[in-house]
Amino acid sequence: MTTLIESKPIVINVGLASFAQNIHDCGGAAQTLQWQPPAEGDRRIGLALAHTINDPHIEAANRIAYERYLGAQPVLTGVSTAREAVPGMEGRIILHSGPPIAWQDMCGPQQGAVLGAILFEGWADSLDEARTQVERGEVRLEPCHHHGAVGPMAGIISPSMPVWIVKNATGGNVAYTNMNEGLGKVLRFGANGSEVIERLRWMARTLGPTLATLVEEMGGLELKPLMAQALHMGDEVHNRNVAASCLLFRKLTNAALASRRVTPDAVREVLSFIAGNDHFFLNLSMAACKAMLDAAHGVPHSTLVTAMARNGVEFGIRVSGADRWFTAPAPIIDGLFFPGFGPADAARDLGDSAITETAGVGGFAMGASPAIVQFVGGTPRDAVANTRRMLNITLGQNSAFTLPALDFTGTPAGIDARRVLDTGILPVINTGIAHKEAGVGQVGAGITYAPLACFAQAIDTLAASLPREQ
Amino acid sequence: MTTLIESKPIVINVGLASFAQNIHDCGGAAQTLQWQPPAEGDRRIGLALAHTINDPHIEAANRIAYERYLGAQPVLTGVSTAREAVPGMEGRIILHSGPPIAWQDMCGPQQGAVLGAILFEGWADSLDEARTQVERGEVRLEPCHHHGAVGPMAGIISPSMPVWIVKNATGGNVAYTNMNEGLGKVLRFGANGSEVIERLRWMARTLGPTLATLVEEMGGLELKPLMAQALHMGDEVHNRNVAASCLLFRKLTNAALASRRVTPDAVREVLSFIAGNDHFFLNLSMAACKAMLDAAHGVPHSTLVTAMARNGVEFGIRVSGADRWFTAPAPIIDGLFFPGFGPADAARDLGDSAITETAGVGGFAMGASPAIVQFVGGTPRDAVANTRRMLNITLGQNSAFTLPALDFTGTPAGIDARRVLDTGILPVINTGIAHKEAGVGQVGAGITYAPLACFAQAIDTLAASLPREQ
Repeated sequence: MTTLIESKPIVINVGLASFAQNIHDCGGAAQTLQWQPPAEGDRRIGLALAHTINDPHIEAANRIAYERYLGAQPVLTGVSTAREAVPGMEGRIILHSGPPIAWQDMCGPQQGAVLGAILFEGWADSLDEARTQVERGEVRLEPCHHHGAVGPMAGIISPSMPVWIVKNATGGNVAYTNMNEGLGKVLRFGANGSEVIERLRWMARTLGPTLATLVEEMGGLELKPLMAQALHMGDEVHNRNVAASCLLFRKLTNAALASRRVTPDAVREVLSFIAGNDHFFLNLSMAACKAMLDAAHGVPHSTLVTAMARNGVEFGIRVSGADRWFTAPAPIIDGLFFPGFGPADAARDLGDSAITETAGVGGFAMGASPAIVQFVGGTPRDAVANTRRMLNITLGQNSAFTLPALDFTGTPAGIDARRVLDTGILPVINTGIAHKEAGVGQVGAGITYAPLACFAQAIDTLAASLPREQ
Repeated sequence: MTTLIESKPIVINVGLASFAQNIHDCGGAAQTLQWQPPAEGDRRIGLALAHTINDPHIEAANRIAYERYLGAQPVLTGVSTAREAVPGMEGRIILHSGPPIAWQDMCGPQQGAVLGAILFEGWADSLDEARTQVERGEVRLEPCHHHGAVGPMAGIISPSMPVWIVKNATGGNVAYTNMNEGLGKVLRFGANGSEVIERLRWMARTLGPTLATLVEEMGGLELKPLMAQALHMGDEVHNRNVAASCLLFRKLTNAALASRRVTPDAVREVLSFIAGNDHFFLNLSMAACKAMLDAAHGVPHSTLVTAMARNGVEFGIRVSGADRWFTAPAPIIDGLFFPGFGPADAARDLGDSAITETAGVGGFAMGASPAIVQFVGGTPRDAVANTRRMLNITLGQNSAFTLPALDFTGTPAGIDARRVLDTGILPVINTGIAHKEAGVGQVGAGITYAPLACFAQAIDTLAASLPREQ
């Protein structure tokens, strides 16, 4: 008490910085707390949020969901075609990235990719014919996420495409993804010229079947240890996958050398293709993350975020306790552009690849990947700061994914929608930037953030569904 | 002046910490500088050092030597046998690591490896017979470094072994090294049982010739960009080589797939062997460093360190301006031991692999490789601190090898023997620890430091050879 009277006051200022001006004027010191009202000051949403904080139903549900996510063991178990492996792929159907969207609302790259997939499937012989088909509603367009799948950028998966099959050995749930085409003119950026279609046909004819044999002969492949190793090698397994791709290449080569069922020509073509693509592992990283998060989905009342995905128009999230999307306009991306391109060329945020951040890697694991800043911008210090900041909005850390540069602590894991809304700290996402017109391709890479509005809607919905207090 | 009188003094204490006690007693503050007299207070050596500081002959010589080191472009140009490629390998000769040493003075692992090489060459049929030969002086034992070569641990190169040939495209000088056998029972740790000899014979029969074809068909391989990429992937290319080994594996596989001259069986055996060894790149890293440093060797008066090497008994350094070794007892290693082993089992510091630190990678680039501390001990913070500390004893930084975690600054490069002696900051070395008895193998890994005495002798010699002032 004496100390309080005799010593100078130590002032912490919460709110407007100008509140502390008087103290400064009198020669005192005040530390202004970086703070803003929860839910950006929205009274109704703020009250909904307040209902959810420390709610025992939510706490219990989150413990269950988080444990299921942590305990998931994604294993690459096979390769097949989407038609055979992915549920609900009958007839003329094309899956796309992000939340649901109608053809006429799709961004340029996604429309271009849909048309390309129709040509690849042989449902039409020209782009005009393909466009007519899709405009007449003869091709169903549904989100990958509604079929247990994920796809980068446009995220197009059509029935004849080969898919990776990733099973969570713990929970039994299965995730699917397409195969990475490489860089340049590729379907996922909306390109649909003959070279693109020819490559897709080769992938269906040779890449898929060869990898199916190799994965079978390998007896599957555990993906979590491989991702963990890559995090120790400077990848964040979203926009930097060179280490994981090399490690996977080595395993596939070993399998190919031991195999008696694959032909030398197929081995040559397939391994050369994989060796030429430092992002080849990306799709597997995404499917592994999808398998981990689907394990945690569907726990009533849980505020754990189980998906973040973008279709170039809308950004959507899913939370474990609600079976619907919460969407907001897809953000623009602050990034580094390739020579000759700038922000005016950029599509809005696109692709299912933010599933990696949802699972605690990608932007959340940037601290493992200082070299990523050469690709997405910023400094190595920013990269570490991004990882640390995400600890404020996650339920914990994933000890399966350790970060050497952060003293081997685990990646921030399990985004709690409440914490996002409460702190205003938005999930950080490393992402490629597509040209806004179909087929131009990637024009840069950068950093973006999930919109707060998605989390506000999610909490509003989950708060309303809580049992009423008596 | 008024400030000086009216304000409190700010005290920096140089020397014994107790000098500052009076100030502390009077309530003042003094900052004690971490400082010790140059040359550990040796008056004669200290005076010699003083003669060399800012000496124009040395400064000019160091500029030349440093530029030659920086400008070197080590290229893997081929694979051959030591007999055919390495100069002076006629007759019964075996090269070993470190400075020159007589048979009877060699440590256990090095003796075991010499005997194994004699069996491998077929000069003797039993270890006893081999020992008799070498004791009778029928086998010449010379340092690798005297033949433009380097070898890890025991560093044994005998005439029939396959060697990597690395040419400095800028300076034309050539370096050689043997091929990495993998872990476990291997010659470089002194093992010489039948499995070791059989593997060496397979390496001579299949590995060497196959790699010779592939390297030829690849048209050579630039090693500096590959090392630089590996530094961005968590390697320090001395004790952590997993990224570099993967990248090399991918290139060799590509070459093998395209080759019509190698047989499928050879490809299978060779690629499986390489895929199973995360240290396979180490020897190439060493040869690349040797090629960079030999480019800088032989500039009169230069105090640039061009080699650090150990034979398990003595630690030796070479400096550019003197054509001799400067040696001191090989240090013990502070490290992490494998289960069942401890410091009492350890051989003293062994191998030519400290050529990597001499060239600014390895321990000098630990800041790039936080995960290395799981192998050699310490924390990621120590790793960064080691890199930063080495900047005090180097002539500059190598912009060809950038460190992402240190904001992409270059590795500390070009050890100046004067700075080591002046500051007492010893070059840090990451290293494996061999069992002191032949054939047990690796028992751990850790960190050690080059002995100051080597640098004192070097400066003493170089100071004496300076032109006398008039």
